[in-house]
Amino acid sequence: MSNKKKIIIVGGVAGGATAAARLRRLNEQDEIILVERGEYISFANCGLPYYIGGVITNRNKLLVQTVAGMSRRFKLDIRNLSEVTEIHRDRKSVSIRNLQTGEVYEETYDKLILSPGANPIVPNWPGVNEAEALFTLRNIPDTDRIKSYLDTNQPKHAVVIGGGFIGVEMIENLVERGVSVTLVEMANQVMTPLDIEMAAIVQSHMKSHGVEMIFQDAVEKLSDNGKKVKLASGKELSADMIILAIGVQPENKLAVQAGLAVGVRGAIQVNEYLQTEDPDIYAIGDAIEVVDYINGQPTVVPLAWGANRQGRIVADRINGQDVKFGGVLGTAIAKVFDLTVATTGNNEKTLKRLELPYQAIHIHPNSHAGYYPGAAVISLKLLFEPVSGKIYGAQAIAANGADKRIDVIATAIKGGLTVYDLPDLELAYAPPYSSAKDPVNMAGYVASNIVDGLVEIVQWHEIDEIVSKGELLIDVRDAAERENGFIPGSINIPLNDLRDRLDEVPMDRTIYVSCQVGLRGYLAARILTEHGYTVKNVDGGYRTYAAAFASRKA
Amino acid sequence: MSNKKKIIIVGGVAGGATAAARLRRLNEQDEIILVERGEYISFANCGLPYYIGGVITNRNKLLVQTVAGMSRRFKLDIRNLSEVTEIHRDRKSVSIRNLQTGEVYEETYDKLILSPGANPIVPNWPGVNEAEALFTLRNIPDTDRIKSYLDTNQPKHAVVIGGGFIGVEMIENLVERGVSVTLVEMANQVMTPLDIEMAAIVQSHMKSHGVEMIFQDAVEKLSDNGKKVKLASGKELSADMIILAIGVQPENKLAVQAGLAVGVRGAIQVNEYLQTEDPDIYAIGDAIEVVDYINGQPTVVPLAWGANRQGRIVADRINGQDVKFGGVLGTAIAKVFDLTVATTGNNEKTLKRLELPYQAIHIHPNSHAGYYPGAAVISLKLLFEPVSGKIYGAQAIAANGADKRIDVIATAIKGGLTVYDLPDLELAYAPPYSSAKDPVNMAGYVASNIVDGLVEIVQWHEIDEIVSKGELLIDVRDAAERENGFIPGSINIPLNDLRDRLDEVPMDRTIYVSCQVGLRGYLAARILTEHGYTVKNVDGGYRTYAAAFASRKA
Repeated sequence: MSNKKKIIIVGGVAGGATAAARLRRLNEQDEIILVERGEYISFANCGLPYYIGGVITNRNKLLVQTVAGMSRRFKLDIRNLSEVTEIHRDRKSVSIRNLQTGEVYEETYDKLILSPGANPIVPNWPGVNEAEALFTLRNIPDTDRIKSYLDTNQPKHAVVIGGGFIGVEMIENLVERGVSVTLVEMANQVMTPLDIEMAAIVQSHMKSHGVEMIFQDAVEKLSDNGKKVKLASGKELSADMIILAIGVQPENKLAVQAGLAVGVRGAIQVNEYLQTEDPDIYAIGDAIEVVDYINGQPTVVPLAWGANRQGRIVADRINGQDVKFGGVLGTAIAKVFDLTVATTGNNEKTLKRLELPYQAIHIHPNSHAGYYPGAAVISLKLLFEPVSGKIYGAQAIAANGADKRIDVIATAIKGGLTVYDLPDLELAYAPPYSSAKDPVNMAGYVASNIVDGLVEIVQWHEIDEIVSKGELLIDVRDAAERENGFIPGSINIPLNDLRDRLDEVPMDRTIYVSCQVGLRGYLAARILTEHGYTVKNVDGGYRTYAAAFASRKA
Repeated sequence: MSNKKKIIIVGGVAGGATAAARLRRLNEQDEIILVERGEYISFANCGLPYYIGGVITNRNKLLVQTVAGMSRRFKLDIRNLSEVTEIHRDRKSVSIRNLQTGEVYEETYDKLILSPGANPIVPNWPGVNEAEALFTLRNIPDTDRIKSYLDTNQPKHAVVIGGGFIGVEMIENLVERGVSVTLVEMANQVMTPLDIEMAAIVQSHMKSHGVEMIFQDAVEKLSDNGKKVKLASGKELSADMIILAIGVQPENKLAVQAGLAVGVRGAIQVNEYLQTEDPDIYAIGDAIEVVDYINGQPTVVPLAWGANRQGRIVADRINGQDVKFGGVLGTAIAKVFDLTVATTGNNEKTLKRLELPYQAIHIHPNSHAGYYPGAAVISLKLLFEPVSGKIYGAQAIAANGADKRIDVIATAIKGGLTVYDLPDLELAYAPPYSSAKDPVNMAGYVASNIVDGLVEIVQWHEIDEIVSKGELLIDVRDAAERENGFIPGSINIPLNDLRDRLDEVPMDRTIYVSCQVGLRGYLAARILTEHGYTVKNVDGGYRTYAAAFASRKA
């Protein structure tokens, strides 16, 4: 008890608040000072869009901990409306400005924890400073501003710039309030952790809820006090309000001023113990660079789980425990109207960029037994190493059951399991919850069959070119199913007739087969392979193909 | 292709049907004969109670595969309404009786797969044969009989004998149809995979839906054509119908006749390749003995996942693949009115019986962020080894979110993760789905704190005796919370006042602390420990204590 420590934490939300509470639980004597620039600590960032949308009606519910409550319970010295303006590493102190009085004073530390977060990016477009109803969303005052604007001005139309997770959540909540929305997104899809054919499913769904989406276009300037948005394409949009959600940049000012190294997107660099270059200065949360758990590359993942985990680990380290932060999968999830969209690990774009060998599968199982009411189709994409079966990542979209399967796969990855292990996962089955073969089991079976060489596949984006070269694609669905669409150039031999019609299938070339979701195509591929053919199945079937191209046209 | 095999499968549901389909996918030439005693193959056993209850309205949906459809698609020789009556191992053949014509003939095999399932146990109580409306539920004809009886006779009151998963599902579905139910159960709880304090939660919920429950009592005899049920206690119940759901026994007649070894409850013994003592005879599904994945003991787990997994593995083995069946966790789930009840791995009863060292924790986190609508409290119990943190098992009960957490923990177990790894699981978080610390992360934190010696705990069933011996139990909730009940003999010092009132807490003895769910008790324990006290926290708080004792009184 004699070596009482003095610890200063910069930033009182998520990671900072977690660190403070754990520090106190581990040590009753230490002096713990929590400095927060804003009025509020430990608020529910992730709930803000839903308060704006009216789903959460009680503003107080957003305030997870109050300054008074947390101070008392955890014996903390919380200084809100105070900003750390400078770090003096030589004398182990910080300068703190009281934002209410303007007073600046110095406070020494034994350990310093930087948890400053990240700031919404605001480009310097012409007219951006004159825009009267342009908002970013990061904290409680932002939220109050947006909500008050909506309540008072009853805007009819909003332009949301940026189609990431926050942009999409804001779109949903604006639409819930009766505001029509146009999304402007520089990329060719929403929610970049998804691959394009998966994003296409989300985009079709957003479109069905009346959202207008403009891709591969950028804002050139704002005019008329932000009532007009001119795009690089020349398009001009009118806007009663603008939500700017093009991303965040790590808040690194203090770290840079203190001469500490920053990396990807300016994020503060830390070692596996979350120490900066100065071993007495830790950094956590949205401001830091982390290691990608799958590919080992440095990255930035400004999400709540990491901030909380890191806050705990730093408190443990400072109190002598041997714990490390092991990197991030980037598991993420969002509700998009009636859909759940969830991802974990690396997507195909990332694997391609890093030139890692991979295989992708798309399956469409039911969220639970099809005969029990309420089952939804889960569009599930799994990425894995083609020889070892190592799991790289997964993406799932469904009206229900997507979160569970992504959580199971994220757990499997952390457990070092391969696609061969997924069929052995003994998941809870009764008709309201799953099938005797859970979707994750199914993904494992499909992936194992590929690793084992039982079937070869081609992807949705390859098949048009293959068919245009004159290759034979057999659609093995029943004739009636083709009335709702089919891959151009395919011929039809229903699966159940295939054995009787083998004389129609030439032996001298690769045969391509497809069906609705990939399952009957696989059966057809097995029959043909066993009869000596070289066969490839269209992965994910017509469903994946059609969804992807619906997006391209959108 | 030259060494074409002839394979006979006995039993066409679940495992048998799965084996047949996979056998064909792997080999187009083999002769595959599927012999099924009943009319139907591959039906949805697990859906039967819901068809009776009217939740599933279309009977055809229960028929996953038809004889004609599956025969054609998989080129199978399916012989339904046919029974294998004898195995002739010496000449590798079976006798088959055509149940429609009475004809008996012999069929040879290269490989034989036994998938005969299990039969509902029907004790020979006096009067059982005269009971006119006594039903067991196993297959489609059973289902038709029960549904027809309900439709025609409109019974008012049913006695369900046996409170296992099927009994409880039947109770729910009978209540849905307006039938009042009395449950008679020999044990002191429903659903024995749960520990008693967890079952208590289910029982309270069933009671709130009007179900009468009689525990630790047994049927002595039936009379009045099954309209009266006399119990060992002397109680007499009247019954318009009786559902008998006291368990199933492995169907081992063929195996025993063939001289193959049987084990636990008469289940057919197999090696890790699912071979019986005769390497050309495999056995799968509800009829076989399996290895408990946690404790390595032989057991019987008649559930769908294992049957399907085993059917696949046998087909792979027969076609030369090196795969094994690795044992079962016994992951199970049921919907009980508005609750989901899920378990995986070993429960406390089992660990106690095997004298394995263990620690149990109970937590009550929200299924998702409390500020987002629809959050439910999950009652989550985790069992683990007290030194290594190895996970033994878990039980979860909640209106929503229980299935996901049990699936994650089941996956963590298969990945060899310990309680120390659970905080590192990066699970999908947005307010509609979870919290920044998921309930599984939380369980990991709580368990790690115990393994690390940060806190000691006592259980709900220990505290009454401790207090009655005059030990000091401090309830650290706010005074107002005690109005809804408290542990008898506890005194009240609210957590926030504890530091100021340490002079009221004697140093010369162990101090016990409790709160509502265990979290504030933990904080209090940390404060007291840091001040030099010896402290124990009541695990799960008043909530676990009260729920457990509500059951005892029920």
